[in-house]
Amino acid sequence: MKASTGIGIGLAFGGILMGALMGGTSPAAFIDIPAFLIIFLGTFGVTMASVGMDTAKKIPTYYKRVLNGAPPDLTGRVELLVSLAEQARREGLLALDQRVNEVDDEFTKKGLQLVVDGIDPDLVREVLEAEIDGMSARHHVGAAMFEKAGGFAPTMGIIGTVMGLVHVLQNLADPATLGPSISSAFVATLLGIGSANVIYLPVGNRLKALSAEEVGLRTLTLDGILAVQAGDNPRVVAEKLNSYIAPTLRATEDKDSAETGGGGVRSAEAA
Amino acid sequence: MKASTGIGIGLAFGGILMGALMGGTSPAAFIDIPAFLIIFLGTFGVTMASVGMDTAKKIPTYYKRVLNGAPPDLTGRVELLVSLAEQARREGLLALDQRVNEVDDEFTKKGLQLVVDGIDPDLVREVLEAEIDGMSARHHVGAAMFEKAGGFAPTMGIIGTVMGLVHVLQNLADPATLGPSISSAFVATLLGIGSANVIYLPVGNRLKALSAEEVGLRTLTLDGILAVQAGDNPRVVAEKLNSYIAPTLRATEDKDSAETGGGGVRSAEAA
Amino acid sequence: MKASTGIGIGLAFGGILMGALMGGTSPAAFIDIPAFLIIFLGTFGVTMASVGMDTAKKIPTYYKRVLNGAPPDLTGRVELLVSLAEQARREGLLALDQRVNEVDDEFTKKGLQLVVDGIDPDLVREVLEAEIDGMSARHHVGAAMFEKAGGFAPTMGIIGTVMGLVHVLQNLADPATLGPSISSAFVATLLGIGSANVIYLPVGNRLKALSAEEVGLRTLTLDGILAVQAGDNPRVVAEKLNSYIAPTLRATEDKDSAETGGGGVRSAEAA
Amino acid sequence: MKASTGIGIGLAFGGILMGALMGGTSPAAFIDIPAFLIIFLGTFGVTMASVGMDTAKKIPTYYKRVLNGAPPDLTGRVELLVSLAEQARREGLLALDQRVNEVDDEFTKKGLQLVVDGIDPDLVREVLEAEIDGMSARHHVGAAMFEKAGGFAPTMGIIGTVMGLVHVLQNLADPATLGPSISSAFVATLLGIGSANVIYLPVGNRLKALSAEEVGLRTLTLDGILAVQAGDNPRVVAEKLNSYIAPTLRATEDKDSAETGGGGVRSAEAA
Amino acid sequence: MKASTGIGIGLAFGGILMGALMGGTSPAAFIDIPAFLIIFLGTFGVTMASVGMDTAKKIPTYYKRVLNGAPPDLTGRVELLVSLAEQARREGLLALDQRVNEVDDEFTKKGLQLVVDGIDPDLVREVLEAEIDGMSARHHVGAAMFEKAGGFAPTMGIIGTVMGLVHVLQNLADPATLGPSISSAFVATLLGIGSANVIYLPVGNRLKALSAEEVGLRTLTLDGILAVQAGDNPRVVAEKLNSYIAPTLRATEDKDSAETGGGGVRSAEAA
Repeated sequence: MKASTGIGIGLAFGGILMGALMGGTSPAAFIDIPAFLIIFLGTFGVTMASVGMDTAKKIPTYYKRVLNGAPPDLTGRVELLVSLAEQARREGLLALDQRVNEVDDEFTKKGLQLVVDGIDPDLVREVLEAEIDGMSARHHVGAAMFEKAGGFAPTMGIIGTVMGLVHVLQNLADPATLGPSISSAFVATLLGIGSANVIYLPVGNRLKALSAEEVGLRTLTLDGILAVQAGDNPRVVAEKLNSYIAPTLRATEDKDSAETGGGGVRSAEAA
Repeated sequence: MKASTGIGIGLAFGGILMGALMGGTSPAAFIDIPAFLIIFLGTFGVTMASVGMDTAKKIPTYYKRVLNGAPPDLTGRVELLVSLAEQARREGLLALDQRVNEVDDEFTKKGLQLVVDGIDPDLVREVLEAEIDGMSARHHVGAAMFEKAGGFAPTMGIIGTVMGLVHVLQNLADPATLGPSISSAFVATLLGIGSANVIYLPVGNRLKALSAEEVGLRTLTLDGILAVQAGDNPRVVAEKLNSYIAPTLRATEDKDSAETGGGGVRSAEAA
Repeated sequence: MKASTGIGIGLAFGGILMGALMGGTSPAAFIDIPAFLIIFLGTFGVTMASVGMDTAKKIPTYYKRVLNGAPPDLTGRVELLVSLAEQARREGLLALDQRVNEVDDEFTKKGLQLVVDGIDPDLVREVLEAEIDGMSARHHVGAAMFEKAGGFAPTMGIIGTVMGLVHVLQNLADPATLGPSISSAFVATLLGIGSANVIYLPVGNRLKALSAEEVGLRTLTLDGILAVQAGDNPRVVAEKLNSYIAPTLRATEDKDSAETGGGGVRSAEAA
Repeated sequence: MKASTGIGIGLAFGGILMGALMGGTSPAAFIDIPAFLIIFLGTFGVTMASVGMDTAKKIPTYYKRVLNGAPPDLTGRVELLVSLAEQARREGLLALDQRVNEVDDEFTKKGLQLVVDGIDPDLVREVLEAEIDGMSARHHVGAAMFEKAGGFAPTMGIIGTVMGLVHVLQNLADPATLGPSISSAFVATLLGIGSANVIYLPVGNRLKALSAEEVGLRTLTLDGILAVQAGDNPRVVAEKLNSYIAPTLRATEDKDSAETGGGGVRSAEAA
Repeated sequence: MKASTGIGIGLAFGGILMGALMGGTSPAAFIDIPAFLIIFLGTFGVTMASVGMDTAKKIPTYYKRVLNGAPPDLTGRVELLVSLAEQARREGLLALDQRVNEVDDEFTKKGLQLVVDGIDPDLVREVLEAEIDGMSARHHVGAAMFEKAGGFAPTMGIIGTVMGLVHVLQNLADPATLGPSISSAFVATLLGIGSANVIYLPVGNRLKALSAEEVGLRTLTLDGILAVQAGDNPRVVAEKLNSYIAPTLRATEDKDSAETGGGGVRSAEAA
């Protein structure tokens, strides 16, 4: 489902807020400008120093991707590739030329174009694998940025808290303000651990999961395109590509095997 | 044994509860609605944000799998594959056609069907390896979800405790309620660490172990099916497949070597 | 040395106990039944839930292996394999048949039997490597169980301590019992960290080290058996197998090179 | 952007300082000579002991690299390599001789020189890969030094704080100085965690990121040089090298495909 | 530089000691026999239980290696191998026989002897790689022992401190001794964290770094010996081996290319 990350973070925020309210704490107690400065500016600064400004500039893009990220349509892709395999077997690879432009996905399109252009299978694999590796490396940079922020934020919280305690301990003269001062020091810990665990780490995890799903979809596509180019039997193509999909979500395989039966493969492969 | 995870978690719960009771603490002290909200809703929210709602929906499935997971019957599988190797050597691969439907396990069935259909060994290996990799990746997603929950829960506990302490410190006026208030703040730590270590992490570990056992069984099966297809000597097949089994659990090897002796292999391999 | 793990754990226990006694603490202070229940039953329960009951049942076996584990006799194995290489070169592989039964080690025996049976070198390597991988995977399960226990025990200790503190804080009325009550709560931390670091983790480490040594011995043996089968020059066999042994422990190499000199190799390899 | 690490660390310092000032703490409170000695001399000492003096001597070089590190010009490199591929296809490899000296980058120059010298492609790959691996290993040593410092500094902070607490606890006679003394002990924790998270870890991270970018640029260059040597079609070279670049930054591919169209490749590859 | 580890650890000790003295703490406060027993005997015991007595016996050897470890002379080794490549190309491999005994390094000697003996290049590579792997594995055991000690020591410190606190809390009757007693309990934490971070971890790190340098030197040597055996062009040998060295430290390459120029390679490789 598309909105899972937004809903999840919302649930967590809601749970923590309701817990605070029911425990009698006013949320206003958690709004502490010095702590905000230390945690958010501090974490942003060291994270940007770690990953460079070019990556840091893409933070809004990453949040957008996480909030809109939907699971990839593996089943649809398998159906597309199996239908291409059928057509290629019937009418030859050049017949796929007209279908290249119907394909929405840029990666599938690029792969098919290479196949139609008659590029050597090894080179097709190389170009497409380099594309997958490059995408995976670029995605990794984004996920790593959020993981780093998730690692730095709690230590910024500790810095804020220790700084607050140092201040308190140097001014023990007025015991009346002791409680609220220490309390205010602990808000920094709260903001540091909270922002890391409710925002940065879940977002980083989600970016990694979305990247893995996208890599899976493209690897499936690469396998399918090479099978189309090799002129493999469509049923074996379906069988192989379906391995990437959870059994409960598979579509083509059963339909196909019902239609052609085992015998069709035997004769086809004997050729 | 099937119920080990349930029994193990029960033992741990029992030990902790008995320890609490013997130490004089009433379990009622641990029931703190605000802490429950923060820990369980918070952990559920950020975990769902991390893994996506589709994976989170399968939580009941994962618990069920963990409670019912039995160790795989490696010995039985070896016996099946060795008997298939014997039949294939005597009567040819096509003779296995009638036995495909007697096989319960979907993976073994799929592999045998490909062999009977005369698919090329390299392609059989590729299809079955893709199936194993796909299953392993899907299992991994589930285990990783519980491990993430096991990582988030203690930090949610700390958030709850620090929030409680902040509340206490801002209201130091009434020393009489100080003890119970701090005590109640620490219940959040307890619930966070407890749920992580008594539920999430053991369940995540068990899912990984079950997945590894299933991957082991399927790898053994893949090796066996390829050996059947290659027409390998049944005794060598048994010897090789038995390597996957602990020496104390092996069955076929001794029986086989007692029956045929070393000489049988020598002549067979000389062919 | 065989007893190193027992002696090491004994030394650590002794050091901690003497430190406690010299610091004026009576060891009786550490015997706290509720803490014992929480730490040991809790850790056992969640560890069993993690690894399954079949692995948990082998705990006594693992302790026995750790207490009796001796370093493998690499030098003796090299001498055996070099003498087999010499005999095979002089009298042919079939002449090794009579020596198979003199060999104590099951793995060496299995490998030699395969060689004598005339099995193809690639298949010999495959069967023996599968045997090594299988053993390594089984050993790993045992070591991982102790490492998991070593990870769970300190958190069980924290659970026990926080539970104790919660109890103390709810009963602040009687300040006289405050010290002993808090003290008793900390005993749980002590037992958790102590059992993890003095027992579980060293035992897990030792199991891994013993497994690595056994894998090293078997890999050496596999290399040697394949060299015997290939009819390699005994001196080169010795040179290669000695690479697995620390220079200070090597025996055969010097003797051999003293006997045959460099020239023997040159002519032999020229064939 | 070149200055990102400097700006990032500056932002973090600024945020922490502003937070301290707004919270009422004078920055002078954090200047504690004994703590400085323990944290900075201690961390420097154990880090130098870990990595050796030769690496420690290069600390200024590493800081300089981090402050000046700019993202590599992947697009310009692809354009250079594609233009070399065009020329090599038109005029032969020897024609590249005159262009070798126009190339600024030492690595590209070395690779082109080997190609012009007629060295075997496998050897060109080997030499250039060894160069990349060597550079990567040298970079890694520098990044690892800062990561080690980032690991040691907080523990030095804890050593300083515990030492301070030990001193305070042995001199409880004068309660008036208690607060400032404990406060001063905590400054060590602050300096340890602060220096690790605001300086050492971001610098280490940035060095790793710069190294990864440089390795990426060189791997792209290696691929391009081998394609030039193999006489590959310039459009396929562009397509392949562009896989290393984020789609939004690609330049050559679109231009090229607009110029030559798909047909050009088909005929070229048919040869 | 040879003494870097000794100097580094000395600097760290000095910094910590000066910090303590300037902070007013007498170093005598840190000498606490019970804490020493728990930390040092405890850590030694569990480390020996982890790695076995045979490895523990080599502790003095490891300290000696760390204190004497000098960076390897890569440049000198490259010069030696290039001069061997020149001689082998001029006078043939057998001419190297007289130079074998002039070589100091055992590994280079063993490799050259194999080359002179006319052993097949694949076997030379196998024997030398096994030697490198074996050395690396043996080094790893030593570094891992110190890393384990560095992991166990702080937990022994916590055991000592908690034990001390338990003792204090059971004897709250006399408030006068409270401060010094708690102080003495914290000395255990100090010794545990201090010994781990000032001794064990830096020594373990240094052993790993020395091992990596030695592996690098031997890998360079292996590459060089195989190039000598293959009769490669000395300039290409220099170019390749120099990839292992930082550009600023390279010697042979420039000299060589000045002497022979690019043309020499072209003609040589054309053969």
